[in-house]
Amino acid sequence: MAAPRESFHMTSDEFRAHGRAVVDWVADYLDRVGDLPVASAVEPGAVRAALPPAPPERGEPFAAMLRDLDEVVMPGITHWQSPNFYGFFPCNGSGPAILGDLVSTGLGVQGMLWATSPAVTELETHVLDWVVDLLALPERFRSTGAGGGVIQDSASSATLCALIAARERAGAPYGTLAGYTSTQAHSSVEKAWRVAGLDPANLRQVPVDAAFAMRPDALATLLAADVEAGLRPTYVVATVGTTSSNAVDPLPAIAAALVGTNAWLHVDAAMSGTAAVCPEYRWIHDGLDRADSYCFNPHKWMFTSFDCDAFYVADRAALTRALSIVPEYLRNAASDSGAVVDYRDWQIPLGRRFRALKLWFVIRHYGAEGLRHHVREHVALAQELAAWIDADPRLVLSVPPPLNLVCFRHVEGDARTQALLDALNGTGEAYLTHTRLGDNLTIRVSVGATQTRREHVERLRALVDFHA
Amino acid sequence: MAAPRESFHMTSDEFRAHGRAVVDWVADYLDRVGDLPVASAVEPGAVRAALPPAPPERGEPFAAMLRDLDEVVMPGITHWQSPNFYGFFPCNGSGPAILGDLVSTGLGVQGMLWATSPAVTELETHVLDWVVDLLALPERFRSTGAGGGVIQDSASSATLCALIAARERAGAPYGTLAGYTSTQAHSSVEKAWRVAGLDPANLRQVPVDAAFAMRPDALATLLAADVEAGLRPTYVVATVGTTSSNAVDPLPAIAAALVGTNAWLHVDAAMSGTAAVCPEYRWIHDGLDRADSYCFNPHKWMFTSFDCDAFYVADRAALTRALSIVPEYLRNAASDSGAVVDYRDWQIPLGRRFRALKLWFVIRHYGAEGLRHHVREHVALAQELAAWIDADPRLVLSVPPPLNLVCFRHVEGDARTQALLDALNGTGEAYLTHTRLGDNLTIRVSVGATQTRREHVERLRALVDFHA
Repeated sequence: MAAPRESFHMTSDEFRAHGRAVVDWVADYLDRVGDLPVASAVEPGAVRAALPPAPPERGEPFAAMLRDLDEVVMPGITHWQSPNFYGFFPCNGSGPAILGDLVSTGLGVQGMLWATSPAVTELETHVLDWVVDLLALPERFRSTGAGGGVIQDSASSATLCALIAARERAGAPYGTLAGYTSTQAHSSVEKAWRVAGLDPANLRQVPVDAAFAMRPDALATLLAADVEAGLRPTYVVATVGTTSSNAVDPLPAIAAALVGTNAWLHVDAAMSGTAAVCPEYRWIHDGLDRADSYCFNPHKWMFTSFDCDAFYVADRAALTRALSIVPEYLRNAASDSGAVVDYRDWQIPLGRRFRALKLWFVIRHYGAEGLRHHVREHVALAQELAAWIDADPRLVLSVPPPLNLVCFRHVEGDARTQALLDALNGTGEAYLTHTRLGDNLTIRVSVGATQTRREHVERLRALVDFHA
Repeated sequence: MAAPRESFHMTSDEFRAHGRAVVDWVADYLDRVGDLPVASAVEPGAVRAALPPAPPERGEPFAAMLRDLDEVVMPGITHWQSPNFYGFFPCNGSGPAILGDLVSTGLGVQGMLWATSPAVTELETHVLDWVVDLLALPERFRSTGAGGGVIQDSASSATLCALIAARERAGAPYGTLAGYTSTQAHSSVEKAWRVAGLDPANLRQVPVDAAFAMRPDALATLLAADVEAGLRPTYVVATVGTTSSNAVDPLPAIAAALVGTNAWLHVDAAMSGTAAVCPEYRWIHDGLDRADSYCFNPHKWMFTSFDCDAFYVADRAALTRALSIVPEYLRNAASDSGAVVDYRDWQIPLGRRFRALKLWFVIRHYGAEGLRHHVREHVALAQELAAWIDADPRLVLSVPPPLNLVCFRHVEGDARTQALLDALNGTGEAYLTHTRLGDNLTIRVSVGATQTRREHVERLRALVDFHA
């Protein structure tokens, strides 16, 4: 009978060997992902049905995991990294991001306090200051003044944190607080409002103009009516690049409408903020210098693997006052000195990964030059596709695309649009998702996957031409 | 003059080569981490001062990132993966977890909806059902009934989600809702209460007994007084393994005290739940079959790299009713059919990584047998250390340690305890953190790092012996 094992851990040599196998597996995957049908075709329950009902009593060889990854998991994967993925939003990972995140997982350190690993906090603060340069963001968001940046998991969480800060800054009974966002804002605004315990009846959906951007005149009217009714305008979320159509809310006019209120202006540029790496697209941020907070997602269009939302505040004290709770077991000399940032107080959870590493690797690998190149390429491809759609009598371009999201429908109406969408997705050669704009079912083409090149968008055009 | 570059992406060959280098870097790190001073000694600002003030215009070679990782970042790292790390809580990564997470980053898919990549949702549901088996959790938490599990980033987020569900289920004005947790509960309970917009004056801190566990008689008294005053008991958080001393709140008596109320009982076993892989420690979950929700952190003591909190609810409809918001752009046939789980409605953010992969790899690599082996080893080492401390007249053992957390102080009082803690951490050969228990400054020894073996705990004992 064998002696009891002393350790079940993977040895260093095993880790090196299996690690190489996984690196090659990922590389092979990214090499072939463009040839795979984009969307998974599995039926509900099919993946589970192929898995053993109970966990193993004895450990299994690593090769068994890789085998099941190929045989059981992969059929259930919709390929967000495919060059033919145009759905939802770009979620464009990249080599340097994947490897930066691997270092983070390997280090396995916590960044909840400066003291729990000082480099986690300092690199994050520093790289987010770099991003202020990269995107020419307002100086008020730099950590060297009263503001600063922090990495959140997602824009949803940034929206919630900004709302909590706004709610506390208002200093009024919660039932009297009113919020404002456009009818086109992301669903996370409504979700944050609900989570924060505020009255759903006091969250206004501001009407939009023909380009689906918030109407500042309508906002002003709502503000005046609420003040008249005894409510306190507390939180306004403007969107730079809406989910449905990439509409850009007019920040200067929105900020002007807020003069005289104490409302917190949060700007959600999750999907489109990255465009500001290019000077010619920086107009999307006009007026941002009057915002209290801002976020965009490097995990959406800046080649930084999910999750990485860059969230900035102009007054970090307003945020940390709302979110700081200090139990004895987290007290330490560095925090007590006030000389350091403790990111625990900038977010909802306590624990936090070393996420700055992947963003740091990405910025250094591409340089500003490389990021600009690929953003310009995506925008150019989207614009060409839009021009072609606009010229086709069978198709209606919903709006002139500001950047890299093209929205269109079939001229014959919703049923025909749905049939076109189904036909396109049915080919497996492209994946697109839908929305409604005004009364119309609308097909969205989000151009921003890492591997998307001219040949892929031209193939999409041919498919649309054939099925329209 | 060179032609403009067509792509700045890392090529497949480059990724393979750099990937191997990073795998080796991580392996080398884990090989030598036991020899490094555990806590970083950098001064505030030192890491930032070594970084260039502006982002690079041109991309840099990958070797430059690895060089700066060693030269700039590493001095600022406190080594949570060191076998000599006994601070805060175990955050014990492992080879299979690191590689499972690498696959997740490489795939770069989203699991916000079943439809966005069915395998992400199905593997997560399935593996969390496996964990019900592994830990012998109540059947009500299995997905095959009315309940089910989901992976959150952290126990803080689980506590918040459970609270939102409880708040909505209460169906009463928010100002009338009361919450209950012990004086020893994690700070995330107070934070969640604040985030959820509830009245801080209505969150009760229930007194504890000599072992720092919640007193059910005191809870009953508070409940009765609140009901008498017209408040509605809505949310109770019991802790299985408190942060400060690993106290286990008596779930059966707490559940009994809640009979007749509509209060939601959430059980937070973040740090200690993993112990239930061993039948002899399953007493910690006695009474859990009467809880509405439960969480523990595989990223704390189950060799699954951060972030991975396993959160279970008995009635998933109560959770999703509170958190579901469905905009048009997320509607799809599978969701409309009701045949699938959309984890978007089980959490605060919208986007989500494929986190189940790392947990799946861990369970399959270790098997139940391997997990039990290492948990037993950690508990045995902690118990031996506690016995030694208890026998030393210079030291006071704060409580008999239920599992793997040993709390003690110097018999001569706080100043001497602080000096001992500082001396131990000053050696660089161990890292411990503190808390207060009752009136006493207390040193915590959390035994649970992946590489911690008998030789390390014996070395710690020698250091305590020398400095006490």
